[in-house]
Amino acid sequence: MFSRSDEKLEEEEDMGLQINALHLSYVVHVLGVVGVVMVLVWNISFRGGLAWSSSNKNLIFNVHPVLMLIGLIIMGGEAIISYKALPFKKAEKKLIHLILHAIALILGIIGIYMAFKNHNESGLANLYSLHSWIGIGVIVLYGIQWIYGFLVFFYPGGTGDLRRESLPWHVLFGMFLYILVVANSALGFLEKLTFLESSGIDKYGSEAFLVNFTAIVAILYGTFVLLTALSRAPDEDNHTYSAI
Amino acid sequence: MFSRSDEKLEEEEDMGLQINALHLSYVVHVLGVVGVVMVLVWNISFRGGLAWSSSNKNLIFNVHPVLMLIGLIIMGGEAIISYKALPFKKAEKKLIHLILHAIALILGIIGIYMAFKNHNESGLANLYSLHSWIGIGVIVLYGIQWIYGFLVFFYPGGTGDLRRESLPWHVLFGMFLYILVVANSALGFLEKLTFLESSGIDKYGSEAFLVNFTAIVAILYGTFVLLTALSRAPDEDNHTYSAI
Repeated sequence: MFSRSDEKLEEEEDMGLQINALHLSYVVHVLGVVGVVMVLVWNISFRGGLAWSSSNKNLIFNVHPVLMLIGLIIMGGEAIISYKALPFKKAEKKLIHLILHAIALILGIIGIYMAFKNHNESGLANLYSLHSWIGIGVIVLYGIQWIYGFLVFFYPGGTGDLRRESLPWHVLFGMFLYILVVANSALGFLEKLTFLESSGIDKYGSEAFLVNFTAIVAILYGTFVLLTALSRAPDEDNHTYSAI
Repeated sequence: MFSRSDEKLEEEEDMGLQINALHLSYVVHVLGVVGVVMVLVWNISFRGGLAWSSSNKNLIFNVHPVLMLIGLIIMGGEAIISYKALPFKKAEKKLIHLILHAIALILGIIGIYMAFKNHNESGLANLYSLHSWIGIGVIVLYGIQWIYGFLVFFYPGGTGDLRRESLPWHVLFGMFLYILVVANSALGFLEKLTFLESSGIDKYGSEAFLVNFTAIVAILYGTFVLLTALSRAPDEDNHTYSAI
């Protein structure tokens, strides 16, 4: 039915890129470590440190970017690529996917709580900015996506038809949500830095560059996560869609 | 080789969603009109109007969000879905794709120029924010993507092999760039609104809500653009990848 070149085209059409997902996943891990170091240097060395409670309310806020980056972005990203990046069996990778997303979600919820805690204890307004609106939307959808994934793909598990029909949507909606997560982190970095610059820090100073480049590392991390998810696992059995 | 259910799965795996792309494209057009109205109401009714040159330098800046939204986001989005949304022949749709992207690029360049013009005439710093950095990156990559597409897919045109191998990357990189465009518009709306709020406008006032909802309309528009591009055209010949 297909000529050889049609078959080749067909193969490329499924967006399973002709790249080794495992190699891309190394880039993801490295960018993740770089991102964690940058966000810690920013909040500890430049912003004075982290605290669950303190008379210096800024230290409470500082926990927010650290937990959001480590949680939703890095743990969430590692969860997404777990099917492509790990040398385990499908059932084990599914469990890791589920657990990493649960950790991402919990860190995300605590991180958001810390922003509210800082606002409330400092008398700042809540929920007026685009960053906060998208953030609330994202965390709610992330929770719904996790619960749906748990019920349909893990326990008690949907019928074969439901899994088959749900999976492309689970993947697509997960990628959409992850793009929103990464974009919203850029909004957060920009918002915080704009506040800092309007109260005096140098627009071209080292802290400004550190924050902007941390945002860029987060965007690159997210890009490589999605590229890994769209690429072929070395072993065909490791294909994302085999998650069914 | 495949059982019926494998075939069905295989069909879904190519991310050609089982939605009618034409119906989704109507949502895109409607959201586009809503977005244009909102950005015009904001800049004309709330921000005092648009001007190419004026002693009120703010009016020069106001051209920036209007042209970026109409150009890169709306024209760029319509260009992306042209293969799925229009009832013409492939060659005609390719020409429309090319022209709409050229208009998007030109409006984008003029829009960016207006931001620099406002900054320079007002003595404001250039190119310190994440929004400006990503914006410069995006417009350069958009230009490169357009030139590559023109040379390989239009004139003089690459060999069959080059087209076949380039197309999935052209589509993927185009989608990646478009996500950056939409995310960067959200950064721009947030940055401008943060400036306005720090110089006194109400954080929960009607202008703040208008700006945030304009950003959300832009994000929804971008989402439906990508969803349309990933969906099936009613006529299989209209499939994006038939652009070869």
